[in-house]
Amino acid sequence: MKLKTVKITPIAFKDPPLLNAAGIHEPYALRTIIELESDTGRIGLGETYGDAPIIELLRALQPSLIGLDPFDLNGLRRRVQDTVARTQVSANTAYKLAPGTDPAKNVQKLYSALEVALMDMQARHLGAPLVDLLGGRARDAVPFSAYLFFKYARHVDPSYPDDAWGETLTPAQLVAQAETMIGRYGFQSIKLKGGVLEPEQEVECVKALAARFPGMPLRIDPNGNWSLATAIEMGKRLDGLLEYYEDPCPTLADMAALHRATGLPLATNMVVTDMAQFRENVSANGCQIILSDHHYWGGLRDTQLLARMCEVFGMGLSMHSNSHLGISLMAMAHVAASVPTLSYACDTHYPWLDPDEEVVAGGHLRFHDGAIVLGDAPGLGLEIDQDALARLHEQYLSCGIRSRDDAAQMRKYRSDWSGKAPRF
Amino acid sequence: MKLKTVKITPIAFKDPPLLNAAGIHEPYALRTIIELESDTGRIGLGETYGDAPIIELLRALQPSLIGLDPFDLNGLRRRVQDTVARTQVSANTAYKLAPGTDPAKNVQKLYSALEVALMDMQARHLGAPLVDLLGGRARDAVPFSAYLFFKYARHVDPSYPDDAWGETLTPAQLVAQAETMIGRYGFQSIKLKGGVLEPEQEVECVKALAARFPGMPLRIDPNGNWSLATAIEMGKRLDGLLEYYEDPCPTLADMAALHRATGLPLATNMVVTDMAQFRENVSANGCQIILSDHHYWGGLRDTQLLARMCEVFGMGLSMHSNSHLGISLMAMAHVAASVPTLSYACDTHYPWLDPDEEVVAGGHLRFHDGAIVLGDAPGLGLEIDQDALARLHEQYLSCGIRSRDDAAQMRKYRSDWSGKAPRF
Ligand SMILES: [Mg+2]
Ligand SMILES: [Mg+2]
Repeated sequence: MKLKTVKITPIAFKDPPLLNAAGIHEPYALRTIIELESDTGRIGLGETYGDAPIIELLRALQPSLIGLDPFDLNGLRRRVQDTVARTQVSANTAYKLAPGTDPAKNVQKLYSALEVALMDMQARHLGAPLVDLLGGRARDAVPFSAYLFFKYARHVDPSYPDDAWGETLTPAQLVAQAETMIGRYGFQSIKLKGGVLEPEQEVECVKALAARFPGMPLRIDPNGNWSLATAIEMGKRLDGLLEYYEDPCPTLADMAALHRATGLPLATNMVVTDMAQFRENVSANGCQIILSDHHYWGGLRDTQLLARMCEVFGMGLSMHSNSHLGISLMAMAHVAASVPTLSYACDTHYPWLDPDEEVVAGGHLRFHDGAIVLGDAPGLGLEIDQDALARLHEQYLSCGIRSRDDAAQMRKYRSDWSGKAPRF
Repeated sequence: MKLKTVKITPIAFKDPPLLNAAGIHEPYALRTIIELESDTGRIGLGETYGDAPIIELLRALQPSLIGLDPFDLNGLRRRVQDTVARTQVSANTAYKLAPGTDPAKNVQKLYSALEVALMDMQARHLGAPLVDLLGGRARDAVPFSAYLFFKYARHVDPSYPDDAWGETLTPAQLVAQAETMIGRYGFQSIKLKGGVLEPEQEVECVKALAARFPGMPLRIDPNGNWSLATAIEMGKRLDGLLEYYEDPCPTLADMAALHRATGLPLATNMVVTDMAQFRENVSANGCQIILSDHHYWGGLRDTQLLARMCEVFGMGLSMHSNSHLGISLMAMAHVAASVPTLSYACDTHYPWLDPDEEVVAGGHLRFHDGAIVLGDAPGLGLEIDQDALARLHEQYLSCGIRSRDDAAQMRKYRSDWSGKAPRF
């Protein structure tokens, strides 16, 4: 079996005005959909970032993939390394929140995008769900968390219609958002994207959530927007309320100092995002829980590697998300199902996806009691809705956004916005 | 596809009187051959240690495997953990050279024995060589080293006929052994099992090998039989001659002190043999090269995990061997072929196997220029010669040996032998 075609389709989908430490989500989020086909007619699906640099890399890699044996992941790695070494890509924007935009991770990102699609093809060839190639399921249902955001009611440009969620800037509005999301999906833990309001206000929001949902695990993620002193002070106020405290401070040294000062379990997808940083964290003990993300940790198998390394070095493991569609969701679910030690509910932005904007056939994937339940369909169990894909690709072509830049978007609301962290 | 039968066959095969730090090889070495068959008629082959405790564990595990999906390696791990927790096994002998006899590694050993056989079955089901399930081949040919031993001409019991190798106790005899082995197999590097003669004599032996085979990578492995002071002194004499210096001292602390004192690259299969010790070694920097061995590192995928961890923490990777037959040799070759960073020739005892004593159809596997060349046959590419297996099982039943004990064997030659290390 050999790869015959590699189709790379950038898409844009509507995104609500969600607030974070860097700024605010633009009216459209970008992704890339990868469709492979073998000479035997098997397909393989992948989904990754949609920013200009990754698309340029995918297009540079594309010709070298034709003829590749879909089981030859070592061959994929060599081609990816060669491509990244020889390809000059557009400069990334200043947006630094997501490790996915870090050019130092280009090999891992590019490899992952194709590894998932190739493993999907492998599993379809085998007639088995992808999780079987990852060692089988340690669990049948993969729990996700309710991912709450502060948000404006509408985008700055009045041509975009309001979303259904409304404004979230107060504890009462946040509790209402949580009620809606939990009512709709059945999530059994909550993550709040913080680093937006004054820290004291965000602490009040966490307290309101704890009061409304007693016993439900809670997390807050200020995305490195709090100074060490602020994080220590807020940590004291939050003590006893949090499952873990995610990236309050922007550096590993500050995270280590915070852990020493408070004893709180600290999680990260900002200061431990590759193996070199993992190694530093072994010495520093800055973070006790690592948020995996196959999109930038180098794929599904390397996520399993990370899981075992966390086990060896006594760290916990959870899972990070960026705005994504169903292919990424199912890839996350299959790898999470295969990792016995992944003991936290995974993050997902999926509830923020417009119900009409999904590229997989059948539309939005369903959660059961807040979890994705793996079926027995081969591979990821998904097919592409070509009409939907074409529509979202048209939207990509017309929307004008080519690389995510939440800070630039925020400057349309507040011209003095720098996006520098820590702001508090 | 489900497992229908699990056949566990202990075997014994003739072993020459090879000397090591613990004592001397007994007239027979033990292994266990594992044959799986699925409800679809697929087979899967495995090979592991043949000592009484592992056979007891395999037999305790056996009933729980019936009905297992061969892709469900997480399910295998759970069954193995349960079996090890609830099974009382015979005490191991005092033989401590091989990590394979360490009862703390029972989970890894038992898991590995079945993982290889299940992955062989998976790959046969897929119609692809096993290496394809390990990410494909980073190399087609896996180089092995000439594994030289000091040895007596014959076993202490005169009823055993002499082997073809004769006595090896002097530099000239060792050079002759190397010439024979290299002439026959084409090996391009040499490992000497040391810790047997006076250290000065062994250094002279290494020098004789270096003179006879200029430029060929050389290693010596005294199996922890040298004190730190002796190892430092011999290290000075060996400086510039060795590819790496394997386990001269018996503890991680001594290895670290030796490395600080000499700067020589130190390899081990004695002081870093599991993940807890790996973690200690990260801090101690006792060993710069880890000898992998899927039989006790928890299987093929965990050998890949170890490889990546070595990469992350800046350690080299080579491969250890015990006395084995062709199934183990091919499992070693498939995983080694899949690991790009395995940059040393692997150890193998295979040349010491009597040409008439192989359980795989076709007899002894062939080396090409010292390497095993992977073919395209499904799985490990091997079938069992049932007559040969029955013959070696009969030999197991009649030989009387149930657990390897090189020290007890040596006491038949030297009644005062303690086997305590370091002796020098
Ligand atoms: Mg985060
Ligand atoms: Mg050794």
